Amino acid sequence: MKAIHIQNPGRNSSLVIDEAPTPKPASNDILVKVKATALNRADLLQRSGNYPVPEGASEILGLEMSGVVEQVGAEVTKWQSGDRVFGLLAGGGYAEYCTIHKDMAMEIPESLSFEEAAAIPETFLTAFQTLDWLGELQEKETVLIHAAGSGVGTSAIQLAHHLYDAKIIGTAGKQHKLNTAQKLGANFAYNYKEQNYAEEIINDIGTDSVNLIVDFIGKPYWHKNMEILAMDGRVVYLSFLGGHKVEEISLVPILRKRLSIMGSTLRNRSEAYKKKLTQDFASQTLTLFEDGKLQPVIDSTFDWSDTEKAHQHMQNNKNTGKIVLTGM
Amino acid sequence: MKAIHIQNPGRNSSLVIDEAPTPKPASNDILVKVKATALNRADLLQRSGNYPVPEGASEILGLEMSGVVEQVGAEVTKWQSGDRVFGLLAGGGYAEYCTIHKDMAMEIPESLSFEEAAAIPETFLTAFQTLDWLGELQEKETVLIHAAGSGVGTSAIQLAHHLYDAKIIGTAGKQHKLNTAQKLGANFAYNYKEQNYAEEIINDIGTDSVNLIVDFIGKPYWHKNMEILAMDGRVVYLSFLGGHKVEEISLVPILRKRLSIMGSTLRNRSEAYKKKLTQDFASQTLTLFEDGKLQPVIDSTFDWSDTEKAHQHMQNNKNTGKIVLTGM
Repeated sequence: MKAIHIQNPGRNSSLVIDEAPTPKPASNDILVKVKATALNRADLLQRSGNYPVPEGASEILGLEMSGVVEQVGAEVTKWQSGDRVFGLLAGGGYAEYCTIHKDMAMEIPESLSFEEAAAIPETFLTAFQTLDWLGELQEKETVLIHAAGSGVGTSAIQLAHHLYDAKIIGTAGKQHKLNTAQKLGANFAYNYKEQNYAEEIINDIGTDSVNLIVDFIGKPYWHKNMEILAMDGRVVYLSFLGGHKVEEISLVPILRKRLSIMGSTLRNRSEAYKKKLTQDFASQTLTLFEDGKLQPVIDSTFDWSDTEKAHQHMQNNKNTGKIVLTGM
Repeated sequence: MKAIHIQNPGRNSSLVIDEAPTPKPASNDILVKVKATALNRADLLQRSGNYPVPEGASEILGLEMSGVVEQVGAEVTKWQSGDRVFGLLAGGGYAEYCTIHKDMAMEIPESLSFEEAAAIPETFLTAFQTLDWLGELQEKETVLIHAAGSGVGTSAIQLAHHLYDAKIIGTAGKQHKLNTAQKLGANFAYNYKEQNYAEEIINDIGTDSVNLIVDFIGKPYWHKNMEILAMDGRVVYLSFLGGHKVEEISLVPILRKRLSIMGSTLRNRSEAYKKKLTQDFASQTLTLFEDGKLQPVIDSTFDWSDTEKAHQHMQNNKNTGKIVLTGM
């Protein structure tokens, strides 16, 4: 088969399509003819040599894909050739074929294209894990989603809206991202460059009013977060784009408001965890995708012969939403 | 009935036994002839005027009790006069009679005296909530219990040992407390005045080795805690005896090790929460108390006419274990 190879991993790496062995499905795997894959920041890190490939994972880039089942492993009964599937990968999506465990694959809702399906797994599963499994968001609670225009942010807003009927607050630094957030279901949207979101929230909703915060920013938001969290409030950290060192914290709010402060990632979770998460996610959301209530936010689609251009686009922070590759 | 009254709440308060109206059980309550109650720090705060009585709670001191059912409310079928019961109270234990909701009362195991039963609820329910409901301690995990000689500490060690077969580490500042901790089931015990417990743990067990930390200390332990926590590790804060301001923290371990940092209290929880906690606790532990595997650590027992002396004893930090009042 053909796959994208990284030449000269490091600062001057380049990507070329070349031959690679077609993967063989283990007894519980399926072999998928890839129709589309999508970019993740980790892809850029991996080609620059800064993201070691987890043990047992494919060296080929690509953490999510959609496609058609080509062949099933000896013990697989739930899938058959021709089924349209999508899902998370530990690697291997930038290729004509990939394998995936039968329980990591989800059926593509009929109304979705391959491009749309490929844009779902990473951001929506991360958002689902954050809101549901970790944040334990409850019906009608108030959730604050920082980086509301990001892939995980836009997914989290949609899930918070359609699964929990939550009161949703988004923050972002650009007006068009705030507009997107509101269009997707955010009730309040603040520009962190022009507004103190903590003051705005206290004004608009009240003190101690936020049940869950999804935070990608870290340091600059710690104190504000502590201020606005409600009794039994939760914070889930997914990254620290604004730095990780906080100069002086008080532990008092943690005890007084019985807070939980958590950190999480998706990629380094166990296979068993990801399977269970995928199944739970599929059972709660696939009909909502089918009905068009949930939808991946796609920035652009590139033919995989232009993967280098697609990477540049992400590297330059030009995208709002997912960048999809097709044509393999 | 007779009850203990606070005269001149504040710095110069005193305690006297005087008349008070006998409480009337609501339809789902039981009226209990109190046989014993036990002291809590909150009692000292309340008499000094620094602990507002929660809405709806008795003004009389006493957050736990044991006794005999005197009368049951109209809708109570699970208890009858003469039953030996014990449990948490929102207040009212320093009296001849108190009322308690039927689902907040537990049956006293036959082998336990009233004095022993009265010494159980606050410390053991707090420890159970911390280890089980919040800390989600799993079989064979490693748990670090700071203030291992305290009431909650000694309860937590016993529960960690008998319910989860955990690897248990205790810290305390006095040798006799470390001895108690080891006698109750701690596998490792470190004197924080003479040893750097983080270094000792790394030496004795390994880096990133502690799954759950029960912390009453706060500030001085933050960095050490971050250092020794394992992947998916949890910290539950119950108080900040060592201060609450931490200078320069890094959020990195929270994300890298997927930590959860929580704070909790028991008294300000809802009635519904306390009932469910009590029922869960009773179902998992009462036979262990009956068999003598779990046992309250009692420091001393005072006749309730000497309550002032008992309070002085606690105020002077003379006790290791619970101080019990009887004779009402």
